[in-house]
Amino acid sequence: MKLRQLGEDRLLARLIPSLSIHKGVVAAAGDDCAVVEPPRGKNLVLLKTDCVVEKIHFATGANPVSIGWKAMMRPLSDFAAMSGVPQFALVTLIVPSRTKDEWVKRIYHGLNRAAARFDVSIVGGETSGTGGPTVISVSVSGFVERDRLVSRNGGKAGDDLFVTGLLGGSGRGKHLRFVPRIEESRWLTEKFSVHAMIDLSDGLSVDVPRLARASKVGFKIDMENLPIARGAKIDNAISDGEDYELLFAISPRDRDRLHQSWCQKFPKLALTRIGRLNQKSKIKNRKLQSGYLHFK
Amino acid sequence: MKLRQLGEDRLLARLIPSLSIHKGVVAAAGDDCAVVEPPRGKNLVLLKTDCVVEKIHFATGANPVSIGWKAMMRPLSDFAAMSGVPQFALVTLIVPSRTKDEWVKRIYHGLNRAAARFDVSIVGGETSGTGGPTVISVSVSGFVERDRLVSRNGGKAGDDLFVTGLLGGSGRGKHLRFVPRIEESRWLTEKFSVHAMIDLSDGLSVDVPRLARASKVGFKIDMENLPIARGAKIDNAISDGEDYELLFAISPRDRDRLHQSWCQKFPKLALTRIGRLNQKSKIKNRKLQSGYLHFK
Repeated sequence: MKLRQLGEDRLLARLIPSLSIHKGVVAAAGDDCAVVEPPRGKNLVLLKTDCVVEKIHFATGANPVSIGWKAMMRPLSDFAAMSGVPQFALVTLIVPSRTKDEWVKRIYHGLNRAAARFDVSIVGGETSGTGGPTVISVSVSGFVERDRLVSRNGGKAGDDLFVTGLLGGSGRGKHLRFVPRIEESRWLTEKFSVHAMIDLSDGLSVDVPRLARASKVGFKIDMENLPIARGAKIDNAISDGEDYELLFAISPRDRDRLHQSWCQKFPKLALTRIGRLNQKSKIKNRKLQSGYLHFK
Repeated sequence: MKLRQLGEDRLLARLIPSLSIHKGVVAAAGDDCAVVEPPRGKNLVLLKTDCVVEKIHFATGANPVSIGWKAMMRPLSDFAAMSGVPQFALVTLIVPSRTKDEWVKRIYHGLNRAAARFDVSIVGGETSGTGGPTVISVSVSGFVERDRLVSRNGGKAGDDLFVTGLLGGSGRGKHLRFVPRIEESRWLTEKFSVHAMIDLSDGLSVDVPRLARASKVGFKIDMENLPIARGAKIDNAISDGEDYELLFAISPRDRDRLHQSWCQKFPKLALTRIGRLNQKSKIKNRKLQSGYLHFK
């Protein structure tokens, strides 16, 4: 079977059981970040690597500062998903040998700006030539307090499902300039008991089932309630991906307090209840079964 | 200026001063691994990312198990260079979309075998499709005790320069099956005061000047003493690269004790004094000024 038929989630599911796992690993592949137990210390260590590939994650002529920004912000968005604090980044830049160093400098300018936005230090990197497309891989380490770690698998039947921001149409520009919801995520876990969380990288149609499956529950999405970005349609909100907003599950008992305090803390950022988790999945709209997948 | 003219070291030298560096960073880009200060804990944290690219680091038809092995062992060799203990790895696999999953499985088999050799846990990864060559990027985190960290910059005039193993001709197969000198490096820093160390990834002609420059000293290499691999010539030992042996600087007062205890501990692995560090560089052989460089 070829990769484009298999899809990334299924490929990883096949590979994960065979991975070399040793002491100190709290959660490995299968969530947004890996979680490891440091030899000493009260916090857990989070590790995440992510890459952007020319013609997949950015167009060939895109602004290099924006490309660098996106390359850094993608793994940082996974820290947001787990309520983590990113600290250190390593950068691998694979570029065609004919690339001009001015272009590489502008890539680094974008990487630096994005890192500085969240006090992340770029502590190392590697540059390699290639005959193929440009690839930027960024690995980030950081931490999360034990009692504030949120994974995908803690959702409970009856939980409300919330999303931050507006969904859809990210390909028109937002995907190159988004700001990961780290501040929002850290605030949420300081004030509330968030049961499960994920960042919306592949679209609702992929990420809602992903969170529900990890939590071993079903879900119901109210299509009429989706917060749709200006110029986007409901299909975009469901399937475009690259929104990098947070999707999280929280007890309905917290609903009113969450809405009130969110509006005070983040008055410019929408927070929308889009449905809930339940015992068995009731997919009101078949569109939620399709969606963007890598290798497609 | 284009990258192939600039070379990786000069490019990194230009980029490093602009990198976003914050608290907790002991040593960033410019040594084998980045060294960071954990929030609590007596050990330093080491971070390293490295990648292998099809047609640069391995031939298109190479055994995928060997490719995976090499992809993991390259960053682990940088841990050896700093006397570090690797613990956790993240893998980014970028492959053409037409790749068969059986091939990817065999890559992971090699990655796993290499990781298991040094008790490293693969805690996460990402797979992405591309139209270009296969790229495997591996990021590793680990630790080193404060009093056992060795960098490139501690060499002193008068130090002996030693190399482990035999040099040259790695392209005939060793580059795909080498074992990083982690055990040897850990033993060295347990028993001796090693002033400076580097792993020989780019060849003596590049890595000796690199260590000397970082230590702000010169060097003298005795060409007649180089330990040359069977079938290789002196030019190969100087310029081939990918030996992944250790080059280190140590006081001549330790010379006899080092030779004796090394022969007892590692009777099958050569240890050769190839020259020394001095106040001013005396390059006996012009060949040491050329050598393999990325982007060439």
